[in-house]
Amino acid sequence: MTSLVTSPLHDVHARGFASDNYSGIHPEVLAAIAAANEGHQPAYGTDMYTERLQHVVRQHFGDEAEAFPVFNGTGANVLALQSILPRWGAVVAATSAHINVDEGGAPERVGGLKLLTVPTPDGKLTPELIDLEAWGWGDEHRAQPLAVSITQTTELGTAYTVDEIRAIADHVHRHGMRLHLDGARLSNAAVSLDADLRAFTTDAGVDILSMGGTKNGAMLGEAVVILNPEVADGMKYLRKLNMQLASKMRFVSAQLIALYEGDLWKRNALASNGMAARLRSSLDTLIADGRAPGLSFEQPTQSNGVFATLPAGVAEKLRTQGFHFYDWDAALGQVRWMCSFDTTEEDIDAFVAAIERELAAAN
Amino acid sequence: MTSLVTSPLHDVHARGFASDNYSGIHPEVLAAIAAANEGHQPAYGTDMYTERLQHVVRQHFGDEAEAFPVFNGTGANVLALQSILPRWGAVVAATSAHINVDEGGAPERVGGLKLLTVPTPDGKLTPELIDLEAWGWGDEHRAQPLAVSITQTTELGTAYTVDEIRAIADHVHRHGMRLHLDGARLSNAAVSLDADLRAFTTDAGVDILSMGGTKNGAMLGEAVVILNPEVADGMKYLRKLNMQLASKMRFVSAQLIALYEGDLWKRNALASNGMAARLRSSLDTLIADGRAPGLSFEQPTQSNGVFATLPAGVAEKLRTQGFHFYDWDAALGQVRWMCSFDTTEEDIDAFVAAIERELAAAN
Amino acid sequence: MTSLVTSPLHDVHARGFASDNYSGIHPEVLAAIAAANEGHQPAYGTDMYTERLQHVVRQHFGDEAEAFPVFNGTGANVLALQSILPRWGAVVAATSAHINVDEGGAPERVGGLKLLTVPTPDGKLTPELIDLEAWGWGDEHRAQPLAVSITQTTELGTAYTVDEIRAIADHVHRHGMRLHLDGARLSNAAVSLDADLRAFTTDAGVDILSMGGTKNGAMLGEAVVILNPEVADGMKYLRKLNMQLASKMRFVSAQLIALYEGDLWKRNALASNGMAARLRSSLDTLIADGRAPGLSFEQPTQSNGVFATLPAGVAEKLRTQGFHFYDWDAALGQVRWMCSFDTTEEDIDAFVAAIERELAAAN
Amino acid sequence: MTSLVTSPLHDVHARGFASDNYSGIHPEVLAAIAAANEGHQPAYGTDMYTERLQHVVRQHFGDEAEAFPVFNGTGANVLALQSILPRWGAVVAATSAHINVDEGGAPERVGGLKLLTVPTPDGKLTPELIDLEAWGWGDEHRAQPLAVSITQTTELGTAYTVDEIRAIADHVHRHGMRLHLDGARLSNAAVSLDADLRAFTTDAGVDILSMGGTKNGAMLGEAVVILNPEVADGMKYLRKLNMQLASKMRFVSAQLIALYEGDLWKRNALASNGMAARLRSSLDTLIADGRAPGLSFEQPTQSNGVFATLPAGVAEKLRTQGFHFYDWDAALGQVRWMCSFDTTEEDIDAFVAAIERELAAAN
Repeated sequence: MTSLVTSPLHDVHARGFASDNYSGIHPEVLAAIAAANEGHQPAYGTDMYTERLQHVVRQHFGDEAEAFPVFNGTGANVLALQSILPRWGAVVAATSAHINVDEGGAPERVGGLKLLTVPTPDGKLTPELIDLEAWGWGDEHRAQPLAVSITQTTELGTAYTVDEIRAIADHVHRHGMRLHLDGARLSNAAVSLDADLRAFTTDAGVDILSMGGTKNGAMLGEAVVILNPEVADGMKYLRKLNMQLASKMRFVSAQLIALYEGDLWKRNALASNGMAARLRSSLDTLIADGRAPGLSFEQPTQSNGVFATLPAGVAEKLRTQGFHFYDWDAALGQVRWMCSFDTTEEDIDAFVAAIERELAAAN
Repeated sequence: MTSLVTSPLHDVHARGFASDNYSGIHPEVLAAIAAANEGHQPAYGTDMYTERLQHVVRQHFGDEAEAFPVFNGTGANVLALQSILPRWGAVVAATSAHINVDEGGAPERVGGLKLLTVPTPDGKLTPELIDLEAWGWGDEHRAQPLAVSITQTTELGTAYTVDEIRAIADHVHRHGMRLHLDGARLSNAAVSLDADLRAFTTDAGVDILSMGGTKNGAMLGEAVVILNPEVADGMKYLRKLNMQLASKMRFVSAQLIALYEGDLWKRNALASNGMAARLRSSLDTLIADGRAPGLSFEQPTQSNGVFATLPAGVAEKLRTQGFHFYDWDAALGQVRWMCSFDTTEEDIDAFVAAIERELAAAN
Repeated sequence: MTSLVTSPLHDVHARGFASDNYSGIHPEVLAAIAAANEGHQPAYGTDMYTERLQHVVRQHFGDEAEAFPVFNGTGANVLALQSILPRWGAVVAATSAHINVDEGGAPERVGGLKLLTVPTPDGKLTPELIDLEAWGWGDEHRAQPLAVSITQTTELGTAYTVDEIRAIADHVHRHGMRLHLDGARLSNAAVSLDADLRAFTTDAGVDILSMGGTKNGAMLGEAVVILNPEVADGMKYLRKLNMQLASKMRFVSAQLIALYEGDLWKRNALASNGMAARLRSSLDTLIADGRAPGLSFEQPTQSNGVFATLPAGVAEKLRTQGFHFYDWDAALGQVRWMCSFDTTEEDIDAFVAAIERELAAAN
Repeated sequence: MTSLVTSPLHDVHARGFASDNYSGIHPEVLAAIAAANEGHQPAYGTDMYTERLQHVVRQHFGDEAEAFPVFNGTGANVLALQSILPRWGAVVAATSAHINVDEGGAPERVGGLKLLTVPTPDGKLTPELIDLEAWGWGDEHRAQPLAVSITQTTELGTAYTVDEIRAIADHVHRHGMRLHLDGARLSNAAVSLDADLRAFTTDAGVDILSMGGTKNGAMLGEAVVILNPEVADGMKYLRKLNMQLASKMRFVSAQLIALYEGDLWKRNALASNGMAARLRSSLDTLIADGRAPGLSFEQPTQSNGVFATLPAGVAEKLRTQGFHFYDWDAALGQVRWMCSFDTTEEDIDAFVAAIERELAAAN
């Protein structure tokens, strides 16, 4: 048996559209891990890399920002929400939010938080939608809605505008509530909006942020970033007791530095957003030309994901040809195609060709 | 500002005795991460690396063994204990156990587990010590003692013999309880006992294992290994809901493969145990020669840590010279010196010389 | 200041329509408490009253039934659900379920349970509605839907038929799920259906039951009743660790015996249901006669509660005349009028007259 | 079958020494429940009885005091501790504390609190004993010791003096910690110290109190009493979400009024303490006369419980004659004899005679 140390176990040329966490580590991130290696560094966050990361996040998010590196997005979200809520607090979120549908109940079970969920057409909350659940303060029978969580870009591939987030933040703060932003795809949002990271977070009134790394080229690493230190408490302790404290934290911080100190965050998001745009526009052209019978889209493509509706059977046909992707709503025939930092134009074009072929065959 | 991608931020030649998690990534582990990179692999554990890891753990621990990679040791311990206990179960453990003193209360808060702790002279439980808390079954006023957790090697640098663990396992099973082994330093134990990993785990009756990686040369990664599948339930779900599920799991599994598929686990533990033995024997020689006034040891050195008692002020003097280590019990003058896979003979000899010098100066 | 021991502090002649827990203790329940007094009895449920209660519940629910008296309905619900679910289980329930909207988040926070909620027109789930959330088994990202909870009679005053519950139970069991029934108003349901308690619980396939007492004439006391002992585990321990174990349990059990051994449960429910029916039919008559402009009903009245929609301002007018009741949905002008075991015909007739008067005035 | 409503199921003349919660309801408490009956009163604590209770507790504990009636002592303790601690807080307590040994793990599981326990000779903490666990602030690996819980009178039947509690409170506050007092037997303590309730609570620096009712003649009811409102937060919400909110709260409050408005609390405690003193002094006389071979006491009798060591077999002999009591430490032959408000001189004298007889027979 050959050793993994010298040979991969998998086909390193295979790429698909299943998820942006099917991709690997961007070479610059891996180089940063290697550069941080050798010698000893204090554990648990008192290393020079985690210190440097503080400078990086302050450059992006302002002088009050403080980053707490953690392992994964679920951890970041639960910690962020716990830190801004008392034990009796509840969180208003979209029904489609990752915290509601994809975290195995961690916010409730580990965080002890009730989620008050609101259906949305496009994954985006509005002040009006928030008001459907933001009521009942002072009534102990009701878990107290004291925070709102939004995802940017959303789980449906849409992006809030800066004004939309500002309106939500103002509304939330008027009610004495706090605003969390799940930024697992923060970089994709910035690219989509052609804005810097601060424009739709700190400057728009977001109080606390889950800053993504893994989906944008890191191996493993996210951070909770406190933007408004007046509303977040005990993060240091919460991270440990929630089992999200890395001992060799320098390697988590080094990845986030590699992404966020320069412009790698932006280059990677430009790449993945761009490939999603190419996929969408190629297919829109097919539709316009009448060459994509049965294909439709419910959402604009504002990030690195394309959500499409396919005729029955077409998804399976594509998968048997090696194109991997997930159903979004199997009952409705909706599928999700995700692009990564390493998706190529050839990947897209081959996929578009296959889609056209299978749509024709299905008709 | 130079880029981290090409230049480290810290002195890569500095090493100390603070902790085995102050060290970095063993080059073979880093190479394995790099080898697993490129291309796409399924997320959340359905990749080829996690599959290969199953073969690796079965070779070590038997055909029933199943590994669930997680982020850190606290996560591994809490998951392992939850999976073998009902909601009303409690865990008998040594007062000095990591789960009791170093996990920020995660077993209680996140795991919902009560710990029933027993003081020990050397960090090691015995059937008799276990019986001090293993009673009261059927009495609902008492959290039900249904599991025992032991650490191998212990937090005090001692190692259970195979027979000692077997005696505990038999005792525990006679009472219908289950046995967890916190193996953050599993490899150091095997080297200390000159045994294979199976001898004091599966073959000794351990039901479930926290298998360490980080303290022995990994960047970040441990695994829960179920040894007795009849007593562990729901690990897959517990890992997710406890926020310990890595999306790009291939890179955690690749690290564990790098360590455990060949003999790197053993080489690293031989190195760190050997350096601790060198430190201990050098100092024993000094003591025998009357050249170490005030230095004493309470425990045998059976792992990669040396626990010593120093005269007042000596620890501080050593630290000001750049030798980093932690107090173990400041009131008693006890300190802990940990060796890592990358500790060198020169590191040890320079430290011994400094200790001799400072002890003389203090006298 | 006169002593409470001899004189009440409140107007003992005042009654309203706010809630069936605004009423007091039925005289026979109070007599049973007094009869169980004097002398010593073992604490925590090993008394003769709790033993007798087992006979009572077995007569109602079958030979397998076992009752665990607890303090309140929230406690009963959380215990019942914990006992039939693993740590990773989730509960499908109506959005309007008490466990979702009126328990301060206890199921999530204390029970560690995620609720998967489904909007319903009338508070009643159906197999089709359940299927909106009963999916995703085996996917660890999704809290596993392993139980369904229904309320009988519902929070909207409607009652499931026996066949409706049987259809739900069959559907639930086909999926390997378990069925909980929140029977805070169990007696009202039996009276509404003209059925015995067993017909729509044990015989319809319900696995575990929250059996109400407080809302039907008890001072304070409910019970979890396990109907299918194969699916419920550890209730004894769960009751204690969830802080629902009464020391002088004889007095909780005595209340439940007073209600359920004879026919007091039925007499009280006949009374409160009957008064609600009188209220509803009187108002229906007014409507038919054109004498209730703006009054309407969305739900049938099948229990002791009447849900009505009033023109703006009328509710406030009624309250200023001393008629107490709650808004159900203030935005829609919906109110809830609850009748109790001690509501009188005179209470109803006076209220109907006031409603007629105020509707006329508002027009 | 005769009806419970008119006839008790048990021997109303039997009394024993098992527990003060084996006794029933004091007639004045039962009369208060009856007096509060009839008519409707608002639920969940907005009734006139709960309002009156506020006056009662303010008379005892000062103008800042606020009472939150709950169901049982475990509930009171967990709520009190949660309200004075952040999620990362831990509680220093005696190993023998009820919260540690008799609450089924509720503080950890439901409260999410780690207990840091200290063995004591007599159930009483001291500043020195507290310091064994009160350290490590700022270290996130250690659950943060931010509160101390003491029990008065203790689980071993001993009483803290006012000065002892004051010394603990001063010490605790100097460290920025908070002080909880588990007063399940608060009244017994006041009688033992010949002090009013305020002397060793509010005036001694206690921040929050679990005020007992059940063990001193109530049917079912305790209260959390906040003494220092600056350190307790969210009690209203915590009570609900922890399933300790009674709907018909007037009946819990009425019981506490019956006990605490007049002097019933004191009369009952004088009775039970007095009977324990009679038991102890009678047996001390036997010992002095050489008529109690093998009988000894480890603790002073300062409350309503007597802890004794008996020769092997004597406890069993006494039980077969109908004297009920619990082993305290079976291995050491220690037993616990509890007196209640309704224990009579004849009960004591008959028990003393039986003890003398069995000790003679055993010799």
